[in-house]
Amino acid sequence: MSNPPYRIAIAGLGTVGLGLIELLQTNAALVTARAGRPIDIIGINARNRFKDRGLDLSAYTWVEDPMDMPDLTGLDAVVELIGGDSGTALALARKTLGAGKSFITANKALLAIHGGDLADSAETSGGVIAYEAAVAGAIPIIKSIREGLAGNRIDKIGGILNGTCNFILSSMESRGVTYEQVLKEAQALGYAEANPATDVGGFDAAHKLTLISALAFGTRPNFAAVQVRGIEAVSDLALSYAGRLGYRIRLIGLTDGQQMQVAPMAVPQDSALGRVTGSHNAVQIIADQAGAIFLRGPGAGRRETASAVAGDLIDLARGQGRPPFGVETAGLAVGKVERRSGADSVEAQLAILRVKDAPGVMAALTQALALKEVSVDQLLQPGGHDGHADLALVTHPAEPSQLQAAWAAVGGQDYVLGAVEAYRIEQF
Amino acid sequence: MSNPPYRIAIAGLGTVGLGLIELLQTNAALVTARAGRPIDIIGINARNRFKDRGLDLSAYTWVEDPMDMPDLTGLDAVVELIGGDSGTALALARKTLGAGKSFITANKALLAIHGGDLADSAETSGGVIAYEAAVAGAIPIIKSIREGLAGNRIDKIGGILNGTCNFILSSMESRGVTYEQVLKEAQALGYAEANPATDVGGFDAAHKLTLISALAFGTRPNFAAVQVRGIEAVSDLALSYAGRLGYRIRLIGLTDGQQMQVAPMAVPQDSALGRVTGSHNAVQIIADQAGAIFLRGPGAGRRETASAVAGDLIDLARGQGRPPFGVETAGLAVGKVERRSGADSVEAQLAILRVKDAPGVMAALTQALALKEVSVDQLLQPGGHDGHADLALVTHPAEPSQLQAAWAAVGGQDYVLGAVEAYRIEQF
Repeated sequence: MSNPPYRIAIAGLGTVGLGLIELLQTNAALVTARAGRPIDIIGINARNRFKDRGLDLSAYTWVEDPMDMPDLTGLDAVVELIGGDSGTALALARKTLGAGKSFITANKALLAIHGGDLADSAETSGGVIAYEAAVAGAIPIIKSIREGLAGNRIDKIGGILNGTCNFILSSMESRGVTYEQVLKEAQALGYAEANPATDVGGFDAAHKLTLISALAFGTRPNFAAVQVRGIEAVSDLALSYAGRLGYRIRLIGLTDGQQMQVAPMAVPQDSALGRVTGSHNAVQIIADQAGAIFLRGPGAGRRETASAVAGDLIDLARGQGRPPFGVETAGLAVGKVERRSGADSVEAQLAILRVKDAPGVMAALTQALALKEVSVDQLLQPGGHDGHADLALVTHPAEPSQLQAAWAAVGGQDYVLGAVEAYRIEQF
Repeated sequence: MSNPPYRIAIAGLGTVGLGLIELLQTNAALVTARAGRPIDIIGINARNRFKDRGLDLSAYTWVEDPMDMPDLTGLDAVVELIGGDSGTALALARKTLGAGKSFITANKALLAIHGGDLADSAETSGGVIAYEAAVAGAIPIIKSIREGLAGNRIDKIGGILNGTCNFILSSMESRGVTYEQVLKEAQALGYAEANPATDVGGFDAAHKLTLISALAFGTRPNFAAVQVRGIEAVSDLALSYAGRLGYRIRLIGLTDGQQMQVAPMAVPQDSALGRVTGSHNAVQIIADQAGAIFLRGPGAGRRETASAVAGDLIDLARGQGRPPFGVETAGLAVGKVERRSGADSVEAQLAILRVKDAPGVMAALTQALALKEVSVDQLLQPGGHDGHADLALVTHPAEPSQLQAAWAAVGGQDYVLGAVEAYRIEQF
């Protein structure tokens, strides 16, 4: 192999950083062949140099300050695996791209918030931003949208983008346990962080959705425009009743280029997304030429995320970067994706509520809904016990604001006990 | 857009050729933005110039002889949508690549048979071969293996690669009709060719498997090494009994880099491939880093195949071609994938057979199997009628040759009526 090596520095030696070094060692021969040249690690850095990471790193040059990486002689790209949407990660991105070097990252938060500005910088200087590892782990979703489906007008994308949430919801569902129980288990197994707010609050999925949406619809990433609702309030009762009506509740990221939302939604049990269990990620893309394309795979993990970084590295070693959001920044729409009232879209919803088990309650409930012009398509009432009854109902399609008003009105009635849980029904 | 256009000529104006022209018209603005330059059609050709194709082609230059296309002034690439593994398609590929131009094709047969030589020619002259449209229609499977998973050692790939066969098998299964009935319907609907031998005989899937396998395992394509069995002999009885044991029968292309086979196989009903119904295609890739990656989508169709061609065109317009089988030809293994006896692999099989409904038959059958050292894991015998009984059985894993010998021995017994149908069980 007479081509010069592609020279990288790796900032951050957590799970993914170590996974990448292992991958480049284990699969060195095939990576070299597929990249057309060797990939050389010319510098590494992490917060603590002397921590035992279970991997011999003595062959690699330690760089005391990651901010010096862009200045390393012969450097082609910095691989940023530090994380965070500010601080060192952001400063390093700016310096690397400003110097005309390439920047490969798994950092969805950083790009969801600063991706537009970083894309401008990359384009000015001739650097490339690559971030396959930031979305859906090992699944080549960025590449599929950016390149494979580049001839298509994308109409809609729905995805299960957070493995922790999917693990929690599918475990609650299959084992009939509560959110709190499963969360503790997930933390014990290392599937969930000690502070799970970013995952269970839907923000991690929202970061990823922001990137997918920007890429698919040719806009600057606009994280602030995502409507986000987490899974903290999903009850085991809701999952169980959803199941009896043929649905599963999943945390879905949904974008049509006009509206981006992350929320627990009800999807048919036998649909592509409804069948995704455990910590898997999956994405369904609806495109004008290709139709419905579905991808599923591991959404996280040491080797899985390293696989995505390696794919980006090989692209760049072949000189094959793309504009991060599919087109040159001058062609990106600004603010095309906005928070909308939802006034021109309708959706059916699945609602679960607990009512007093008393005569006249069902009549009062359906009347309260009718007053708000919400009509019921399916109703499940398995019989009361202990003085109350649980109900699950599926509405006919209506405007989300109208449905929300109806649930608020119903929730205020004295025969309704506790909160009304309502979920958009999405036919993926 | 100040970049010069990427200039192509299209040879063949059948379904896909017209779909591509329509795509480039309909999505011209986004294709130009994503390619960074316009894509101009500077020549078209088909066998019959004056046929009404339902699309106004008067704006395009007609090239009388497709063999003149590589000589068109300013040409960058020929898009070959003629088909066939010899004749004009092959001659045009050779001339185009020999002239250092790029060659984009949906022609799986051509590349499965001549891909190695054409790759040599492309590499010598600096042309590029792109063939996303040749495998699994709109699904970006070639790109996913070649680029997205380029950091991985691929261990195994299994796919549903022929939509016609999947439509036939899943229709037989869901509606309990015979192969002959469904084939006639599929032909009436345009899903199956008047001469369906290439599809139902498994050869089309074998062409595609050849390409996937060469790419994933870094070998020259070796179509002759694929063990091919079609779906013509799959009975409605077998599908029904498979279902009762929790399996579906699907035409699967399977490769592990050592052995390539296309055959109807039994897959669990709730597995990724088992759930694929209708004319969809799907591929499951098992890789050392990424784990199991699953892709599903439309396997054919005018717009769907055009989508794949357009993705290739945009890659090439950006100057981003790859070696067709992932690595430069000097790095391709020759003959790594070979016909093997199967001596070092074992598989479980599902067998369906009809026996005389008489005392002692079951004892004789199990004894005959035991003599061949085949043991039964599961047995389904729903009771006899009209003097015969149908049996379905699942064996413990054994060498394929041993199982084959056992079925031959059993098939020769006088209490066995008709042929024994046996299917490899694949846990995808």
